[in-house]
Amino acid sequence: MQDHPVARLIAAADDAINAGDFDRLMDFYAEDAVLVVRPGLNACGKAQIRQAFSAVSAHFNHSLQVSQDALHILHNGATALALARTRLRADTLDEACRDATYVFAQDQDGAWRCAIDNAYGHRLLEEPSV
Amino acid sequence: MQDHPVARLIAAADDAINAGDFDRLMDFYAEDAVLVVRPGLNACGKAQIRQAFSAVSAHFNHSLQVSQDALHILHNGATALALARTRLRADTLDEACRDATYVFAQDQDGAWRCAIDNAYGHRLLEEPSV
Repeated sequence: MQDHPVARLIAAADDAINAGDFDRLMDFYAEDAVLVVRPGLNACGKAQIRQAFSAVSAHFNHSLQVSQDALHILHNGATALALARTRLRADTLDEACRDATYVFAQDQDGAWRCAIDNAYGHRLLEEPSV
Repeated sequence: MQDHPVARLIAAADDAINAGDFDRLMDFYAEDAVLVVRPGLNACGKAQIRQAFSAVSAHFNHSLQVSQDALHILHNGATALALARTRLRADTLDEACRDATYVFAQDQDGAWRCAIDNAYGHRLLEEPSV
């Protein structure tokens, strides 16, 4: 795991998800961020993203736990690409591992925010483009 | 293939690579862009990126041809993530297919430029983080 501000943010966001604290989680997202809820369905903006996390959490009986088995960050100026192997656990889920892709952008105050959150990585290519 | 400005740029950049026109190719990159030359080795900035493309082209006896079999673009404000299945052909290469990840950012004039070019996708996670 790299010692990059974005790596620390991802770890802190995982903590917020694992605690079910979606208010705190929203601090990690840009106002107009995009979250891939599932292939073909995106949540756009904090309100939709918060709603999506609440629904996913309820679906897994509030037992969802997220962690990163591996992380590699590529960084250019105010843009960072995080490639992750993301592990999901829940009471009602066989443990799952996903090749996730996150894009972070630095805002005018220098703070990094998640702009694009795609836990499905290249699996999106298996679906028709939308 | 999506009708997105970034999709058109990727197609035009492929044309420039296939024509061996690396001056034209540099128009597609941000000044401080990062190119993953191979896992563990990055080229940073246009001068290094141009040099890397020249070296790769010479390695393949100037026969390298690049195309995208599939492309999916996620777009947030001034940031776009392109997930691609990139096909490489060359005289001295068995045809290869890579799950590539490109990040584009819009500059102040509204033009999209490639900020991060990672043709290796999640293969970077198989290497030690650098």
